[in-house]
Amino acid sequence: MARQPNKVQIIPLGGMGEIGKNMTVIRYDDEIIVIDSGLMFPEDDMLGIDLVIPDITYLLDNRDLVKAIVLTHGHEDHIGALPYVLKQLDVPVYGTRLTLGILEGRLKENGVSAKLHSVKPGDQVQLGSFKIGFIRVSHSIADSVALSIKTPVGVIVHTGDFKLDQTPVDGKVTDFHKFAELGDQGVLVLLADSTNAERPGYTQSEKSVGITFDETFRNARERIIIASFSSNIHRIQQAVATACKYRRKVAILGRSMVNVVNIALELGYLNVPEGVLIDVDEINNYPASGIVILTTGSQGEPMSALTRMAMSDHKKVEIVPGDTVIISATPIPGNEKLVSRTIDYLFRQGAEVVYESTSGIHVSGHASQEELKLMHNLIRPKFFIPVHGEYRHLIKHSQLAQTLGMPKENIFIAENGQTIEFTSETGAITGKVTSGNVLVDGLGVGDVGNIVLRDRRQLSQDGILIVVVTMDKQRGQVAAGPDIVSRGFVYVRESEQLMDEAKERVKQALEKCELNGVTEWAAIKSNVRDTLGKYLYERTRRRPMILPIIMEV
Amino acid sequence: MARQPNKVQIIPLGGMGEIGKNMTVIRYDDEIIVIDSGLMFPEDDMLGIDLVIPDITYLLDNRDLVKAIVLTHGHEDHIGALPYVLKQLDVPVYGTRLTLGILEGRLKENGVSAKLHSVKPGDQVQLGSFKIGFIRVSHSIADSVALSIKTPVGVIVHTGDFKLDQTPVDGKVTDFHKFAELGDQGVLVLLADSTNAERPGYTQSEKSVGITFDETFRNARERIIIASFSSNIHRIQQAVATACKYRRKVAILGRSMVNVVNIALELGYLNVPEGVLIDVDEINNYPASGIVILTTGSQGEPMSALTRMAMSDHKKVEIVPGDTVIISATPIPGNEKLVSRTIDYLFRQGAEVVYESTSGIHVSGHASQEELKLMHNLIRPKFFIPVHGEYRHLIKHSQLAQTLGMPKENIFIAENGQTIEFTSETGAITGKVTSGNVLVDGLGVGDVGNIVLRDRRQLSQDGILIVVVTMDKQRGQVAAGPDIVSRGFVYVRESEQLMDEAKERVKQALEKCELNGVTEWAAIKSNVRDTLGKYLYERTRRRPMILPIIMEV
Repeated sequence: MARQPNKVQIIPLGGMGEIGKNMTVIRYDDEIIVIDSGLMFPEDDMLGIDLVIPDITYLLDNRDLVKAIVLTHGHEDHIGALPYVLKQLDVPVYGTRLTLGILEGRLKENGVSAKLHSVKPGDQVQLGSFKIGFIRVSHSIADSVALSIKTPVGVIVHTGDFKLDQTPVDGKVTDFHKFAELGDQGVLVLLADSTNAERPGYTQSEKSVGITFDETFRNARERIIIASFSSNIHRIQQAVATACKYRRKVAILGRSMVNVVNIALELGYLNVPEGVLIDVDEINNYPASGIVILTTGSQGEPMSALTRMAMSDHKKVEIVPGDTVIISATPIPGNEKLVSRTIDYLFRQGAEVVYESTSGIHVSGHASQEELKLMHNLIRPKFFIPVHGEYRHLIKHSQLAQTLGMPKENIFIAENGQTIEFTSETGAITGKVTSGNVLVDGLGVGDVGNIVLRDRRQLSQDGILIVVVTMDKQRGQVAAGPDIVSRGFVYVRESEQLMDEAKERVKQALEKCELNGVTEWAAIKSNVRDTLGKYLYERTRRRPMILPIIMEV
Repeated sequence: MARQPNKVQIIPLGGMGEIGKNMTVIRYDDEIIVIDSGLMFPEDDMLGIDLVIPDITYLLDNRDLVKAIVLTHGHEDHIGALPYVLKQLDVPVYGTRLTLGILEGRLKENGVSAKLHSVKPGDQVQLGSFKIGFIRVSHSIADSVALSIKTPVGVIVHTGDFKLDQTPVDGKVTDFHKFAELGDQGVLVLLADSTNAERPGYTQSEKSVGITFDETFRNARERIIIASFSSNIHRIQQAVATACKYRRKVAILGRSMVNVVNIALELGYLNVPEGVLIDVDEINNYPASGIVILTTGSQGEPMSALTRMAMSDHKKVEIVPGDTVIISATPIPGNEKLVSRTIDYLFRQGAEVVYESTSGIHVSGHASQEELKLMHNLIRPKFFIPVHGEYRHLIKHSQLAQTLGMPKENIFIAENGQTIEFTSETGAITGKVTSGNVLVDGLGVGDVGNIVLRDRRQLSQDGILIVVVTMDKQRGQVAAGPDIVSRGFVYVRESEQLMDEAKERVKQALEKCELNGVTEWAAIKSNVRDTLGKYLYERTRRRPMILPIIMEV
């Protein structure tokens, strides 16, 4: 991309038309900063994939221009790609203390070192031509910030993920004054969180969950088990506070919950009075009415602590009648069935389960429509780019901005990779850079592509039949076989006749080839594949993968 | 099962702890009647499975005792297993006209004939010792009934699926009087729909959707496309009525929508004025503002008409900017992501989309808590069995009954297959019969079991490596190979080194076997599998299926 003096470019590499994988490039002249580097959880059709990260070809092609990566908060969809990105790109990272604390753990697990620079809300940092301001916002993780990016062309504001909680648990309210001040001084472009752009009204305060906790604790006779996102420090703080009030000890369970609680305690984001935390091995030293267990598994993840407890598969904690289990989260889209299954199993074990349908047990971390309107009215930007959302969320957010008087032509609904270019007066989508999904499967980053996924899908639907033949090359005759081996197709013992007939068909196909002088292996294979495929479809209406293998002696 | 005179047995074969596959056996002495025969859509981990039907071993073992199958309404989860059941069990089927009309289509598609007996709400039918009464209820399909079953031991009431719509579209209100009368005369056991037992309050009337239709039609400037369940005749009636009011023509699209509309028109359940329906090929003869298209695809089903339109893949209708698309349904659990994707694509095509988050565009067909309470208070049963729901729904329904004063010991939360036995005074779970899921995959009914599914899951996650070796049996040496073929594992061209090394490892394993005099094929295979599996896991952290095949010359 050629130099564009007096122009600033905004290039989303992720987070557009999708929930997750958030990453935005800001470029002015020969300088680039990157906002966030998130991962996304795989779609249902990405079989076997562990996670998805943004394609950063554009950054690697311009590696000398990248000044820094600036983080808004410590959620996976904003920092989760960094272990992969920082392996390829050696640049400093700026973020608040808790964000970097969580990131450090991730980097250590992956054996990646990095130059981490800690900032506080209210700080400003000059990075080349960019002056970055960190502005406190509320979100479902502590220490979240929005960013103001002063460029020679104008000011860009990126809200990060946010809500406008008027009564946050730690008392640290969103910096409304700073947003108002920026609005007064003039903002060129606003990029704002669209996750809840469909929801009318206001998102409830995190404190409302505390009230529900209190009520549930008051009624519970025996143990209380709370599953929540480990990163929601304020939620954990409220659980601990309620436990203290009702004189219960708190045990922490689940790897990520233990990790984050330790980091938060160490950095002072979590206040727990002496003697309240106990080891999970000690819970049997106390009466059931004196125990709270804080755990992971609010999404029904098969390997999580709560799911294991529900399935009677946890080493240390068993669910018993009388337990009250609070699932303090809503299912992320796609997890609904896993969560339902966990709830059902908990009920089967005799627990009383407090979950989604009970109001007040979870609140969102994202701004609803009235909060978004307030943010727009405070910032009063010239141009607007809705970010962080599926396509319909971006559309709804655009419609919302229009109801506030913003002209439609000043709003850009962009795709990942599109370059949106601004002067102090104009804005336009002007080009496209490389972007996309990089799939991570085990240790492999990007080695699983569409062909592999297509094969996995076919294998998952109807299984595979392998036809092996050994050919005597000199005589042009079958020396051994054909043998047919199948996996994931039918239960062979009960389908002997089908498999025998299938073998017969393959034999006939091979004989026909011999008769007709077909000697090219590719042609023989294709004959076998067609004959067998047709027969099996007629008999079963299934289309397993058919893999002919010819060996040569 | 031995004869139990003076006892009536209730045996759910499906619908307990699950949504779908509804089927309940009522047995008195040597007589059996069956209520409903539904299918269930496969769980996420039932890869490649088309649908799930109940295991009817118990009925086949007692085939001479089965007097009839009695249907409550025409939804798939109540009649969908009949094409399979009636192939094995030649018994008469009783149901209302629309229910049988829909069933007939299904049976024809499957080449099954049956003795269908049409009844009207209010009718009574004597079947052996059972006197069955059909009682009108409201639901999201017309012609739904609850059942009263008079047995020598006492009266059983089965609600079927129901809601208490006070203003049904066809004006035919739930037969409250009949329920009251039954309650007066004394009911031994109530079996009642638990689908919405989690929801407080009342379910809204179907008519409220008509109000939203009216508002949407009033604002739409160009074409209107409505996606809905084809079986919701009342919804379709309201769409047609609103189209007439706004002088729009109606085209019907999608196989099941066309089928059901035709049946409903034929049987008089749908009233469409002359000249309103047009063929989809005619839509271009009218201005966009004069068109409504009624279609399938409200669940984002990949092959449905709406999804094809959204993906620009439909032969006859293309979505264009200005179109208003109404998705008049909520996603069934598990379909959330498919529906979201469809909405996103529709927005991308430039349509205005009215969907779930817009209130009033869909109402449930199931009774919420206040309606359930009214039903319990009308029936005043001695015993209660919550049916039609996942485990948590059954629990919630049980808790609800207890708040109305029913003793906990008179409520039976049963599993599929459990026998609940009643005298006129007592009730108890006394045994268990064969029950379970029969998986249908293509033409195969029950030929895919746990082993096949487990293989499909492994194949779907990490693919397969096939190792083929031809052995010279006389010399005990490798005659050809080893060759490795993989599918769904890695993109081979980019992983040549990995695959070369894998082959090398297999060679070494084979040589080691030769050296150590291992000649048993099973042992050689197991050696190859272990060596290769270990190597691949180290290098990739994946566990593909490894399938060694030895050929012999």
